[in-house]
Amino acid sequence: MEQVLIAGQWRDANASSSFQAANPATRELLPPQYPVSTWQDCDEALEAAAAASVKLRNYSGSQVAAFLEAFADDIEANAAAIVEMAHAETGYPKETRLAGGEMPRTTDQLRQAAAAARDGSWALPTIDTAAGIRSVYGAIGPVCVFGPNNFPLAFGSASGGDFAAAVAAGNPVIAKANSSHPGTTRLFAECAQRAAEATGMPSGMVQLIYRTSHEDGERLVSDPRLGATGYTGSRHAGLKLKQAADLAGKPIYLELSSVNPVAILPGALNERGEAIADEFTGSCLLGTGQFCTNPGLVLLLAGDSTDQFIEAVTAKFAAAPVGTLLSSGVEASLAANLQVLVDAGAELLVGNAAADEQRFCYANTLLKVTAQQFLSDPEVMQTEAFGNSSLLLVAESVDQLVQVVACLEGNLTGCIYSDSEGSDDEAYDRIAGEMRVKVGRLLNDKMPTGVAVSPAMNHGGPFPATGHPAFTAVGIPGALLRFGMLQCYDNVRPHRLPCVLKDESPNGTVWRSIDGTWTQDNIV
Amino acid sequence: MEQVLIAGQWRDANASSSFQAANPATRELLPPQYPVSTWQDCDEALEAAAAASVKLRNYSGSQVAAFLEAFADDIEANAAAIVEMAHAETGYPKETRLAGGEMPRTTDQLRQAAAAARDGSWALPTIDTAAGIRSVYGAIGPVCVFGPNNFPLAFGSASGGDFAAAVAAGNPVIAKANSSHPGTTRLFAECAQRAAEATGMPSGMVQLIYRTSHEDGERLVSDPRLGATGYTGSRHAGLKLKQAADLAGKPIYLELSSVNPVAILPGALNERGEAIADEFTGSCLLGTGQFCTNPGLVLLLAGDSTDQFIEAVTAKFAAAPVGTLLSSGVEASLAANLQVLVDAGAELLVGNAAADEQRFCYANTLLKVTAQQFLSDPEVMQTEAFGNSSLLLVAESVDQLVQVVACLEGNLTGCIYSDSEGSDDEAYDRIAGEMRVKVGRLLNDKMPTGVAVSPAMNHGGPFPATGHPAFTAVGIPGALLRFGMLQCYDNVRPHRLPCVLKDESPNGTVWRSIDGTWTQDNIV
Repeated sequence: MEQVLIAGQWRDANASSSFQAANPATRELLPPQYPVSTWQDCDEALEAAAAASVKLRNYSGSQVAAFLEAFADDIEANAAAIVEMAHAETGYPKETRLAGGEMPRTTDQLRQAAAAARDGSWALPTIDTAAGIRSVYGAIGPVCVFGPNNFPLAFGSASGGDFAAAVAAGNPVIAKANSSHPGTTRLFAECAQRAAEATGMPSGMVQLIYRTSHEDGERLVSDPRLGATGYTGSRHAGLKLKQAADLAGKPIYLELSSVNPVAILPGALNERGEAIADEFTGSCLLGTGQFCTNPGLVLLLAGDSTDQFIEAVTAKFAAAPVGTLLSSGVEASLAANLQVLVDAGAELLVGNAAADEQRFCYANTLLKVTAQQFLSDPEVMQTEAFGNSSLLLVAESVDQLVQVVACLEGNLTGCIYSDSEGSDDEAYDRIAGEMRVKVGRLLNDKMPTGVAVSPAMNHGGPFPATGHPAFTAVGIPGALLRFGMLQCYDNVRPHRLPCVLKDESPNGTVWRSIDGTWTQDNIV
Repeated sequence: MEQVLIAGQWRDANASSSFQAANPATRELLPPQYPVSTWQDCDEALEAAAAASVKLRNYSGSQVAAFLEAFADDIEANAAAIVEMAHAETGYPKETRLAGGEMPRTTDQLRQAAAAARDGSWALPTIDTAAGIRSVYGAIGPVCVFGPNNFPLAFGSASGGDFAAAVAAGNPVIAKANSSHPGTTRLFAECAQRAAEATGMPSGMVQLIYRTSHEDGERLVSDPRLGATGYTGSRHAGLKLKQAADLAGKPIYLELSSVNPVAILPGALNERGEAIADEFTGSCLLGTGQFCTNPGLVLLLAGDSTDQFIEAVTAKFAAAPVGTLLSSGVEASLAANLQVLVDAGAELLVGNAAADEQRFCYANTLLKVTAQQFLSDPEVMQTEAFGNSSLLLVAESVDQLVQVVACLEGNLTGCIYSDSEGSDDEAYDRIAGEMRVKVGRLLNDKMPTGVAVSPAMNHGGPFPATGHPAFTAVGIPGALLRFGMLQCYDNVRPHRLPCVLKDESPNGTVWRSIDGTWTQDNIV
């Protein structure tokens, strides 16, 4: 049985049972046995994290940055083994996806987070010299990270965006591995533990538990010793955790389901329909459709160009190779959710069938509905069929499209394709007006699957895409704010202020709002 | 029966029953009858607010600012009537408290909010020119404001901090009057409606409902048409609303109970014990103790100077005039909560008795416990006795004081008094370390009751003082962020961007983070 990492020690778990991951490419269980921890492991991890949190109050941002950078270096030194393990556990191709894509994204994110921790601007230091009041975001306390199945590296619970943001904000992390890639998470935790020891982090800086009961998960996110939780995964499990955390008044940042509507207007199709069909197919089938921002709902206006588009993408979906899915669970959910849509009246264009018995997969699938059908049961029609599928919606008028957008749930993204000559502009304005408040990120002429790690990124959006529309899960320094609490100092003696709030800038680089002016200067 | 303000019209409510406010100075009911609205009123208000919200998307910050300024002007023109009404409904003195204190604070807040709306810096516009990604906080949608009983003007639901912040962020407001001062709220809503009409705001910009059933209140804060809620009031009612809003994924910003610990170290008492006794008495009895930041728990170390301090403040509490309380409910709760503390073993120093049958009031009260008593039942010992009372805690050692602070719930404020020569410094460091993460605002040598409207203020803190430790309810522009959603634009064509994200600054004053640099300049 593999060991958990608690309070700086790899040790046997207090296990109630065990589980194994599967190789998606063969449907076979991988040999390692991972423990399902009892509450005792959670309790000890919380205790160690709370103690680490207290010690971290005396660490500078530079010290935390040194840890994150050492961690990134250690990952690079062990990249081949991590990629090998992730490939076995997820079925993702080694070269293009893991080694060439997620891996550099992961280490880059950690280094960006390190730079943010060293700099300190993320914490929005704000100084009112006349009133003698100064405030800044400070560490919120131990953070529990539940990583998703679909980004084993860049959103892994001991390596990814939430981990990097929580640590850069000055917090220890309790990583709850995703059950589909426990071995990958273990390798990351090994790197992190080595880096933590090498850079003098407190014991309990990074801890790893593979799995708990649902009940213990809910207890974990609501424990008084915890500061906050980052969760990326299914809506059902996420909402259960949210309910528990909310009752205890513990912030929980969720990234749940999203169908990511893409409106493609007739002018755009007339102008460059073939190119858009390629873009859509590529985006929708990328990673076998297992992206949070997968375009799962395409909004079209009835007409010849739309008919041609539908014909083209149907052919492309039929011709495209069928990718491997992450798990039997994803495979089963995809089939079940497509069936929900079919039962609700969606017409099958292509796919919706088993594809290859040797591996976890399902045929590339396109379904079609009319706007009228959609509007008659919008909740069911927004069922997310996570994977290599999409629902094409054809409306008779812009009015109908606007109605459809108005009844959408919160989503991470929304896209609108329009022509370059202005024939779509009136429709654009009406659709964008409604779409703007339904999505975190609004795109033009571009599919939503790329999520740049940019300070201006919002990988967030209204409920139920996330739990709070004010926060982003991707983008540094923005993502760090989720793991900070606002700390105000009123009439506090100058020598007792945290460095970032003293008259003299601690590093000359931190941006501070001093009497209403953003500056990198000292107070003179 | 007084009328509600819905969709721009003062009209009869759909009322299930009615209520009257009372004059705290006489215990007599005031004549006006106010309706308890049924769901139909809420529904119509939500519908109008949603329509207003859509229209507001096309309003500039300057237009919203013009409304807030016109509203402030209109309030000033009607200040005498408002003060008269608030005096009758709250018992607060007209001159010092209402006309001279809360009134200018209220209009100043509205004008600060107007300036923030016009400027736009509050929304943290962030631009990544290389990636073509731009983001900014935009209006979250209709905001429901539940105002508290204790600040009829500056935190009134149609005039105060939440109102100003929600409107400045671009949102219409549904004001739910506090039942103890419905007439005051009505007068503000009249001013607001006139100002909204004069400045061309959409109908439904400001609406007023006096009271609903608890069930309808919960339905209101979780309605899909609502953007968010601001609530200031009792913990019990607030947590019920929070639960409903959380389940629906609707942000709700709460300001609930807080005992606001004040540690007074022996060196400080030796140095200036008498002055501190005066400061404490003044702060604790200010507004008859009815401040969110009232110092309700004083942390002391056993010794002669502490004995003298306790003797001095006991005498001062006995000698001080007994202020009027806001309602029979506050009077009854104060007595009941003090009894909880006494039943748990607190020793009575002074007060804890009825004072004057002619008005709502209760004797100035001080109770005392040992740290050991406190630690044996910390939850009960943190019972907030809202009003002119405080609990003095005497510890045998700094260790014990640190233990006490470590088991405190989240609070709005925490204060530490220490001497100027350094004899308290070691104790300070240990206590401050624990206190820092328990409170939103940490003070030195100063009582917590003053809450400056400063950009650096945090009137917030960890649960259960509030619902989320990242937000402040006081302080402009910070308070506006609660009523914004993060809106990202990815590859959006330049002419379609909101003005604040275009290359050219809309006003030359807005601070924007452009490629990591905060600047007021255009992009060139």
